[in-house]
Amino acid sequence: MSAPFDIPVDPERLLADLTALAAIGDVGRGGSRRALSATDIEGRRWLRQRMEEADLDAEMDSMGTVLGRPSDGRPSILVGSHTDTVPQGGWLDGALGVLLGLEIARAWPRTAEFGVSVVSFSDEEGRFSPLLGSRLFCGALGFDEAQGLGDDSGMTVAAARAAVGLAGSKLLRLDLQRHRAFLEVHIEQGPVLEHEGIPIGVVSDIVGIGRELVVFSGQADHAGTTPMAMRRDAGRAAVLFADTVDALCRDIMGDEGVWNIGAIRMRPAAYNVVPERAEVLVEYRSSSENLLDRIRERIPGLATEAAERARVREQVIPAGRVPGVAMDAGMRRRIGEAAAALNLRTRPIASGAGHDAMVLAPRIPSGMIFVPSIGGRSHTPEEDTRREDIAAGLAVAARTVAATVAELQGRMSVTAPRLPSLSFEN
Amino acid sequence: MSAPFDIPVDPERLLADLTALAAIGDVGRGGSRRALSATDIEGRRWLRQRMEEADLDAEMDSMGTVLGRPSDGRPSILVGSHTDTVPQGGWLDGALGVLLGLEIARAWPRTAEFGVSVVSFSDEEGRFSPLLGSRLFCGALGFDEAQGLGDDSGMTVAAARAAVGLAGSKLLRLDLQRHRAFLEVHIEQGPVLEHEGIPIGVVSDIVGIGRELVVFSGQADHAGTTPMAMRRDAGRAAVLFADTVDALCRDIMGDEGVWNIGAIRMRPAAYNVVPERAEVLVEYRSSSENLLDRIRERIPGLATEAAERARVREQVIPAGRVPGVAMDAGMRRRIGEAAAALNLRTRPIASGAGHDAMVLAPRIPSGMIFVPSIGGRSHTPEEDTRREDIAAGLAVAARTVAATVAELQGRMSVTAPRLPSLSFEN
Repeated sequence: MSAPFDIPVDPERLLADLTALAAIGDVGRGGSRRALSATDIEGRRWLRQRMEEADLDAEMDSMGTVLGRPSDGRPSILVGSHTDTVPQGGWLDGALGVLLGLEIARAWPRTAEFGVSVVSFSDEEGRFSPLLGSRLFCGALGFDEAQGLGDDSGMTVAAARAAVGLAGSKLLRLDLQRHRAFLEVHIEQGPVLEHEGIPIGVVSDIVGIGRELVVFSGQADHAGTTPMAMRRDAGRAAVLFADTVDALCRDIMGDEGVWNIGAIRMRPAAYNVVPERAEVLVEYRSSSENLLDRIRERIPGLATEAAERARVREQVIPAGRVPGVAMDAGMRRRIGEAAAALNLRTRPIASGAGHDAMVLAPRIPSGMIFVPSIGGRSHTPEEDTRREDIAAGLAVAARTVAATVAELQGRMSVTAPRLPSLSFEN
Repeated sequence: MSAPFDIPVDPERLLADLTALAAIGDVGRGGSRRALSATDIEGRRWLRQRMEEADLDAEMDSMGTVLGRPSDGRPSILVGSHTDTVPQGGWLDGALGVLLGLEIARAWPRTAEFGVSVVSFSDEEGRFSPLLGSRLFCGALGFDEAQGLGDDSGMTVAAARAAVGLAGSKLLRLDLQRHRAFLEVHIEQGPVLEHEGIPIGVVSDIVGIGRELVVFSGQADHAGTTPMAMRRDAGRAAVLFADTVDALCRDIMGDEGVWNIGAIRMRPAAYNVVPERAEVLVEYRSSSENLLDRIRERIPGLATEAAERARVREQVIPAGRVPGVAMDAGMRRRIGEAAAALNLRTRPIASGAGHDAMVLAPRIPSGMIFVPSIGGRSHTPEEDTRREDIAAGLAVAARTVAATVAELQGRMSVTAPRLPSLSFEN
């Protein structure tokens, strides 16, 4: 490769693609491309077409994941993210990483020994299950296993696929021969970079997540006629529990984590009926597995205490435990160097949100770049990023891909006549 | 009237009617007769038929209220309650008071100067609005006003009436010439009578009710990426508020009232999204208007405190204020005397639940008899009352009606040549 750092990417072309994709499903204006919906598949077909126009060998698999590869089978750096959205989501969450990869692939020299592959994983947002597409791509989940997963309305993956005409059982899969590293550019979805005026976040790790569904079961009694002392009030238990969980997380994690009571759901939910059942959705995140473990161990005890005070029964249902994942040190270093060469300030940042990169990271060297989110907003039509920050992310990503290729080639010539023996343990 | 206390009521006939009515809508086995539903109207048509068989002049009005009167226009004691139910309700709530009235009317001497009228008010349970039928019957609400009221699903009274074929705008109305007193027999819907082994509760008053809907509005942010200090967590405000309201009610009312947080509703209700909106349903009941006022006055302050701590906005929406209503002292005395004559123990009891009698009480002398609820349960298919307690309620009610007539006649002969001047201020 003659000029590894001079990839003539064009931010205007990227913005035009982002705008065109957002129009599908009216994303960013209150619409959506929920995974395996008609609009999601329409977006993915559009993407496949754009990949073909960029001379990539493009394919959509039976679960909706779209992959574009150099048509001659060259090894490549995989760049991408996802194009599905949450309901009423924004135009950049996922789409930025995919279309930025497309722009790099488009600008990439056709003659280089290494190419650029672009991917849009299916259902990153978890309509059926978070990171569904990247887990299938990496073999962490099987095709058959995925078919029975259901969404909020009870619709299964199999039914959703049938409704949008996705036939067969073909899965695109990570190919260690051809995919030598992974880079995902994403909006921060938080306020830190904007707050500090820093355009490029070098993701250090994706935090671990613990989730529990805590269910209290009491008795539905008439709230006018049942003396207070005779009640078995599941709602009261939920309030007591939610308050102590907040204090627990604050005590144990402080600034080293975040937590959320996303909902308290009470039934039957009437002014005049003592709640029979109350569900509390608890989530906590930290880069420290030790802190997550300490919280998880304490939750059953707090639930029991609250249940005893309200004279109800409690059940703690594990609702997900995702270990934290560190990004590859070499990728982090090259991102930092690329930004420095472009005179862009950076800071290391832990990702509080899960991303496809966390599924790829244990398998191939993976890195993530964050660009600022205006007002820290995401998962809403107001989600946005300054145009110059999008351009900066594109430039840093292109340079990072080029530097990664250069290092791979350097190493190859010294230590590895054949690609398979390559590793990125630095 | 020759033998005022010897009304040959038959508890078996009452039980047969209760069983027959429960079969309509499968009530008591998980079904329902929600007001103005097809099953409710089917039940009311059945009732009208049974009234006619008891020689009553029976009519259903355009809102579903059914009234059976002596066919010759005699003055009467009005006995009744309602036959609509809550969803998945029980077989006695309301139905007992109506069919017990029917049994007394059936057993009543045809030759008596005073008769017995039987009523089933529409929508006591408040599918559209609590005590809807009795308020229309007493002129506390107009026909046109009622048409726009909506249920949980947004269906209006007008649409529900149309769906079940209730035409016109005819309202049955309280007739002070013909309806000289009101008696409602009802299950206690609480555990007190059963707990104390007392078959007859003499209702002293129906407690007042205060209700507020407190709404907290914050911002929906990603729960992994938004630092704790930058959140505007409406759910957190709701938990803080619910906990302080519980303490407030305990402090101010103690044993002189009851209270309930019937629901906390959070949106968007996901593990990974900070709640943007949280609604808290607050209700408190007491015989003391003063205590209710003190609580109501403090709620906005507590809401503001919670909102400030969670950095959100709050809104306190009055959701109902029903003043307490005392039962007529003469009716109470006669119920007590009737029970004593039958060797049945009684106790005075405040009704924590609202009943149609509270609408009638300011207009004509009104009394209520409670019979025990097994386990205190109601508004559930398990709602039940021992058969001997139902029989006791029937016997005491029949004797109370007879004694009321006797007193009316006695007074008439002394002080009032014409009926209209009668009053029951004792």
